[in-house]
Amino acid sequence: MYSGGNAARAMRRMLSLLFVVFVAASLAGAPEAGAAQKAPRYVFLFIGDGMSYPQFQAASDYLGAVRQSGTDDKILRGGESLSFMKFPVAGSAVTYDSTSFCPDSASTATSISTGHKTYSGVINMDEGKTRAYEAISEKVHRQKGFKVGVITTVNLNHATPAAFYAHQPSRRQYYEIGEEMLKSGFEYFAGGGLLKPAGQDGKQPSLYDLADDYGYKLVRTQAGAEKVSAGDGKVILVAEHLADEQSMAYENDRADTVWSLADYVRKGIEVLDNETGFFMMVEGGKIDWACHANDAGSTINDTLALADAVDVAIAFADKHPDETLILVTGDHETGGLTIGFAGTDYDTYLANLKNQKISYARFDSEYVSRYRAQQTSFEDVLKDVERLFGLKASGSKDDTLVLTDWEMNRLRAAYDRTMRGADKTKSQEEYLLYGTYEPLSVTITHLLNNKSGINFASYAHTGLPVAVFARGAGQELFGGFYDNTAIYTKMASLLNVK
Amino acid sequence: MYSGGNAARAMRRMLSLLFVVFVAASLAGAPEAGAAQKAPRYVFLFIGDGMSYPQFQAASDYLGAVRQSGTDDKILRGGESLSFMKFPVAGSAVTYDSTSFCPDSASTATSISTGHKTYSGVINMDEGKTRAYEAISEKVHRQKGFKVGVITTVNLNHATPAAFYAHQPSRRQYYEIGEEMLKSGFEYFAGGGLLKPAGQDGKQPSLYDLADDYGYKLVRTQAGAEKVSAGDGKVILVAEHLADEQSMAYENDRADTVWSLADYVRKGIEVLDNETGFFMMVEGGKIDWACHANDAGSTINDTLALADAVDVAIAFADKHPDETLILVTGDHETGGLTIGFAGTDYDTYLANLKNQKISYARFDSEYVSRYRAQQTSFEDVLKDVERLFGLKASGSKDDTLVLTDWEMNRLRAAYDRTMRGADKTKSQEEYLLYGTYEPLSVTITHLLNNKSGINFASYAHTGLPVAVFARGAGQELFGGFYDNTAIYTKMASLLNVK
Repeated sequence: MYSGGNAARAMRRMLSLLFVVFVAASLAGAPEAGAAQKAPRYVFLFIGDGMSYPQFQAASDYLGAVRQSGTDDKILRGGESLSFMKFPVAGSAVTYDSTSFCPDSASTATSISTGHKTYSGVINMDEGKTRAYEAISEKVHRQKGFKVGVITTVNLNHATPAAFYAHQPSRRQYYEIGEEMLKSGFEYFAGGGLLKPAGQDGKQPSLYDLADDYGYKLVRTQAGAEKVSAGDGKVILVAEHLADEQSMAYENDRADTVWSLADYVRKGIEVLDNETGFFMMVEGGKIDWACHANDAGSTINDTLALADAVDVAIAFADKHPDETLILVTGDHETGGLTIGFAGTDYDTYLANLKNQKISYARFDSEYVSRYRAQQTSFEDVLKDVERLFGLKASGSKDDTLVLTDWEMNRLRAAYDRTMRGADKTKSQEEYLLYGTYEPLSVTITHLLNNKSGINFASYAHTGLPVAVFARGAGQELFGGFYDNTAIYTKMASLLNVK
Repeated sequence: MYSGGNAARAMRRMLSLLFVVFVAASLAGAPEAGAAQKAPRYVFLFIGDGMSYPQFQAASDYLGAVRQSGTDDKILRGGESLSFMKFPVAGSAVTYDSTSFCPDSASTATSISTGHKTYSGVINMDEGKTRAYEAISEKVHRQKGFKVGVITTVNLNHATPAAFYAHQPSRRQYYEIGEEMLKSGFEYFAGGGLLKPAGQDGKQPSLYDLADDYGYKLVRTQAGAEKVSAGDGKVILVAEHLADEQSMAYENDRADTVWSLADYVRKGIEVLDNETGFFMMVEGGKIDWACHANDAGSTINDTLALADAVDVAIAFADKHPDETLILVTGDHETGGLTIGFAGTDYDTYLANLKNQKISYARFDSEYVSRYRAQQTSFEDVLKDVERLFGLKASGSKDDTLVLTDWEMNRLRAAYDRTMRGADKTKSQEEYLLYGTYEPLSVTITHLLNNKSGINFASYAHTGLPVAVFARGAGQELFGGFYDNTAIYTKMASLLNVK
């Protein structure tokens, strides 16, 4: 139809002109393309707390090692990419906060949700702790009429979820954060139980009792959660089977019949799906807790559980490909996890981690407490250590799970320290060895980590940048290397909220 | 000129059509855009050996800490971005090789230069060690007539530079690698001295003597290097002032008058610049060596030196903006460096590293050898430790450089171990403490690292993905999360070589 002489010439000129525009826009980077983009209607923001490159790469490499461990293949074929590692766009974000290069979950979640840096421990307020910042989730709720969901494996009033609905000078103001949750009007909350539901002094009206006053249907059983539907209005689902600190169980410890993070995302989609749109923040909160405790096996399994939850969002996105954006990031790195350890040099034995049957936390609560009460002998403890973690007192020289004399001495010293009990004062050397953890448990995971070729540097957070994976409408905005506050800026520009 | 009725309508239609194409191409990711892109004529590939996110983020944070250390500002303002951290495109590459998740420099450089995985230690050959792979640098030289430069702070026949011109079953075949260097026909080599220039047995004709036979002008003085120009034809510049293992000095130890990596890049541009094009590989090789030795101060300063060398390329690119591509990546991470340490928790004291005046290597050669010869007392050694590394035996409680009793005991034990000398056999515990390094030197850097809030996990490489920063023609190809072999694939598609 444009084949006439003048028209063809005009077309050729247009083509070359627009080619230049196209290339120039490509060179200038993605934002221009994004600005021309239709705003997504469905946004999933997955945050692996404490998850950066080491956590998901270790999980990926672990799967590759397990896959290859039974074969004769002498050529290493690498890891298995987790769902989000295959996303078409990936960038990185720098995480320092106003206090430290090793930042806090409250401040980093504030950066992601509001675009502002603040001090460690502060939820959506400035460094002076006087000015409140509105979160992206509140903006899309108020300005666009999106439904909003907040899901976490840890407590619903913990720092990361709080940064999507609360504004408090301290993350420890659990009760005030819980009140803001009830006042948020968000349509879906799901995850671990509330901390301090009756306030610091235990004398306030229970947040659980108040839920109904704010129009929330509170569901605390899994059978009840299964029955919840969009018709129920605003809901709060608290997992029935709670573990350490009222959180959902580590994936390592979760019974098959108990809902995983993925199940809560699936239910969330059911509750939130609507024509206007929704925004869902999903936190894999116990990746962080496992890294604090230097428990690599639990870290990897909770990272895999986060990837499973992302798969649920991918299935939804496949039905709404032009309208859905999935982001997967971390708030900071925790533990200084490394794939590699001085004692194993260039080798790793990641498949060894498969021997770990339970988390350090469940070992603490179910075993260590009993050892202390019953004054269980070291020899009997060793039997549990082999059964639950694979570490062996003796065996073939080729077996990388057999403890050396030096390692056995470390384990025995930790056992002695744990059996002595209550004394919390630790020397500098003991603090490096055990942190604030149960000496026996943390020594077991340290030994298993190291014998797998993994190490941790810290019991706290570190300054490593985090990855940002993006898939779907507006994905191209999230490539590059930028500050974590830009995650908010990019989301806000894409969603047209101010 | 297109303002007539039909033309205007046609233009509007074209605009909307091409807008759709444009958005579709943007959404589909960068490759399509790249395919439409003119091939760059000038390509710089910077490889920080052992450099991943921890290394450049630590350097960035160090600069921020130093900048802020003298001020009253209580709000942390973050790091100072190194030149390449501001590049418009950034991706990540996974680094495992056919041997290990903690790969080697030979195999990872092979992946980058040829797009193939292979075993650790192998230079541009397959796992069977029979098939040779042609490197991207050879392809652009042969197929496109580009001039090629290979620059490194370590030996010119070390693994990383070798992967751009050699093909050998073992990286240790230094002589054969050197012969391939002479046969490459590449126009510019610059950096540290050759290892085993007369072969393993020292009886082969010196590679230096052979240079002339292959048409190379060999220049071994800085004054000579200064005079080199494009008119000299093919040149090999060996740094005049060599340090440990015939490498260029650590940036920490370099005298102001001695050429830096940036100077060799500047000279390289002068030699290689031509109408057809050039490809320049620049390795910051001692980032890796410093990380192996767990010397954070030297790691940071060599990373800054690499950034300075990148600045030279940026200045060139600014004169040829549509024709130049600059890539900055690492081959793997070394040392398991973390910004964060168990003993300092959420705090860092990165400005403490400013007190380090020399590298561990120079301390070894200039001080430790003398201590041993003269049986220098621990008290006298301590004086040097304070002067050269800032660590103090006593001082105010607030001074984070004052050694605790436990730290002093570690230092004394290392001093004793070093003064005992030659005995290389180390127990498992001693290996973790010292690796294969001089106990005194590595303990000094360990202590200074830790007192700065930095830690290392290993004396070897780790499995962390590396960053890939891109700026210029074809940059958009390098976003995303991909295997390190894709760095080759992307370069090859952009440069139209097979």
